[in-house]
Amino acid sequence: IVTKLPNVGTTIFTVMSALASEKGAVNLGQGFPDFNCDPALVQAVASAMQDGLNQYPPMAGVQLLREAIADKVEKLHGRRYDPAGEITVTAGATQGILTSVLCAVHAGDEVIVIEPAYDCYVPAIELAGGIPVFVQMNVDERGYSIPWDKVAAAVTPKTRMIMVNTPHNPTGSIMKAADVQALADIVRGTDILILSDEVYEHMVYDGRQHESLARHPELSQRTFINSSFGKTYHVTGWKVGFVAAPAAMTAEFRKVHQFNVFTVNTPVQYGLAAYMKDPAPYLDLPAFYQKKRDLFRDGLKNTRFELLPSEGTYFQCVKYGAISGLSEAEFCKWLTTEIGVAAIPISAFYNTPKESGIVRFCFAKKDETLRLALDRLAKL
Amino acid sequence: IVTKLPNVGTTIFTVMSALASEKGAVNLGQGFPDFNCDPALVQAVASAMQDGLNQYPPMAGVQLLREAIADKVEKLHGRRYDPAGEITVTAGATQGILTSVLCAVHAGDEVIVIEPAYDCYVPAIELAGGIPVFVQMNVDERGYSIPWDKVAAAVTPKTRMIMVNTPHNPTGSIMKAADVQALADIVRGTDILILSDEVYEHMVYDGRQHESLARHPELSQRTFINSSFGKTYHVTGWKVGFVAAPAAMTAEFRKVHQFNVFTVNTPVQYGLAAYMKDPAPYLDLPAFYQKKRDLFRDGLKNTRFELLPSEGTYFQCVKYGAISGLSEAEFCKWLTTEIGVAAIPISAFYNTPKESGIVRFCFAKKDETLRLALDRLAKL
Ligand SMILES: CSCCC(=O)C(=O)O
Ligand SMILES: CSCCC(=O)C(=O)O
Repeated sequence: IVTKLPNVGTTIFTVMSALASEKGAVNLGQGFPDFNCDPALVQAVASAMQDGLNQYPPMAGVQLLREAIADKVEKLHGRRYDPAGEITVTAGATQGILTSVLCAVHAGDEVIVIEPAYDCYVPAIELAGGIPVFVQMNVDERGYSIPWDKVAAAVTPKTRMIMVNTPHNPTGSIMKAADVQALADIVRGTDILILSDEVYEHMVYDGRQHESLARHPELSQRTFINSSFGKTYHVTGWKVGFVAAPAAMTAEFRKVHQFNVFTVNTPVQYGLAAYMKDPAPYLDLPAFYQKKRDLFRDGLKNTRFELLPSEGTYFQCVKYGAISGLSEAEFCKWLTTEIGVAAIPISAFYNTPKESGIVRFCFAKKDETLRLALDRLAKL
Repeated sequence: IVTKLPNVGTTIFTVMSALASEKGAVNLGQGFPDFNCDPALVQAVASAMQDGLNQYPPMAGVQLLREAIADKVEKLHGRRYDPAGEITVTAGATQGILTSVLCAVHAGDEVIVIEPAYDCYVPAIELAGGIPVFVQMNVDERGYSIPWDKVAAAVTPKTRMIMVNTPHNPTGSIMKAADVQALADIVRGTDILILSDEVYEHMVYDGRQHESLARHPELSQRTFINSSFGKTYHVTGWKVGFVAAPAAMTAEFRKVHQFNVFTVNTPVQYGLAAYMKDPAPYLDLPAFYQKKRDLFRDGLKNTRFELLPSEGTYFQCVKYGAISGLSEAEFCKWLTTEIGVAAIPISAFYNTPKESGIVRFCFAKKDETLRLALDRLAKL
């Protein structure tokens, strides 16, 4: 069997989680909370199962959930997506991303990927027969930023799509209004589509605004917005997300979706729809995670790491240059094994080999977990 | 946006379910039970959620569930698949089928599809850039059968895969030992892979044996076996299935799986694993559905339909030639609207237009539902 994905191995998240558990390290690698979700959410799903809501839902998702999503996006961003024809429930954002790419990217089409990039983007492009074109973010002590001039220069007549991600995994940076403007200027007058990965949409700190592309009348006309419930409701293992896109794009999305997963777990959808009636859980999320970020950053000031900004997501990047000359991957292994704290090398998010001496910690953890990790890191 | 799937519209299942509910018809169209699953299964999933099993499971699936699957397949078919490297939990069989095809079929490869065929096969091949090659089943009053000589004749040096389905949707036929032998003879000495859709594996009647390709030492070496929990446990909306395949094939499968859905709902997996410790539910299934089949067939004898055999699945095909000269699709619409019983036209499972005067009923319904449908059909 000749491989379709020659460059794919086991993901860094699986590798580091396995090493962490083997070594008894505090796992700040793979991004997931170590606390449980709201019992009310569990109860809502259990009730749906008990009520017999266990057979196929509509292909595009349960109507109540699509309405709840449309209401939320409208309330937060002022754009009303039509639940009937513009919102599709997905089996997690990864499935939404692959499906967005498969339905829109033809063999030989180019897709611009801004690195560091989450690991599912490039395989999705390759499975569609597309060609990834890479642009690297700038990074200095003020953090990561997107060089829009380089993105503009990467556009060719073959460019079919530009993939963006805000809040950004792994860097914790967010797109500002000026970034969105720069992107709009680049695509204006072309037929380039945008895939916007916004799974950390509710984790933006310091009073800043999440610049969802849904807010931008011009860009939203050509954008697949991908989001996730796993991050928002502390249930990364439930594998439910959604894609919002204009009707013509959604029609193509659903053609592939229907023959990829067909549809998504019924009782989980009903449970989420019922639970979303109360917006408090997602409205409280920035404050909830900002406290954790601040606790973690304050503690890191007692270590030899240099802190990069964390404007959003539940990730904090640090520079370890003063501590070690190891490669990022080696340093993460050493940190896990010798110090007992797992992290993720940023190099794992680059396709072109790149070492910046930067690693990523996840702070979606109980305060006591963060304190234990900080105690260990302070010994460096 | 230029479509990747020009021939895809709304599935016949969605169309007929919508019409049935609009007209208040008894819905014997789309295949799903109208009764709930075992409350013990609901409880097992609810317990997993309450226990906090809500974060990412391993990419290939929860270990306990993969072991339960391996145990079941070994007990029933005598082949031990390694849970670590040969079994992957999928977000339903549709996702397993697309992923099997995407990982193995390259642009320009040919895939043999036996018609009538379930509707997700051809779009999967098209998304992989492959070329479907069709062979039509024979049909007479003894039912449907596969013309293996025509399958053999369809093989070319470009043939990468043959797709089979037993028990067979929509026809209710099953592969016999001689069919499996014929398939083995065709592929011996080639590098052709098999995709075997066995989602109705536990619905085989009259004391017959489900000829899983897992039973066949030679064929199982080149086969992706796709199955589903939705059919077996009356939870078609849960969207969980599995793929069993030799290690080298599973390795390629997982490369795509990991970047398609990454993994599958955690608490549902733990719940299924706990519930599967007791084999009674799937061992009792043939008797459970055979009773429904017999009730339905007996009732149909009082109608003007000619009955075809139903050896497996929860589907019963009938010929309506004596009743009407309408096309199958027109007849199903008329039957739904005027008689109040929804069915599915077999023509919807052919890519080459084909009218056989045959429609499919689903008997996975409460006895009272079946009786109500029979009362209406007797008026024909
Ligand atoms: C799908 S496992 C990876 C989880 C995650 O989003 C991350 O750690 O970046
Ligand atoms: C995915 S909806 C179709 C259900 C089914 O398997 C059928 O009716 O054939």
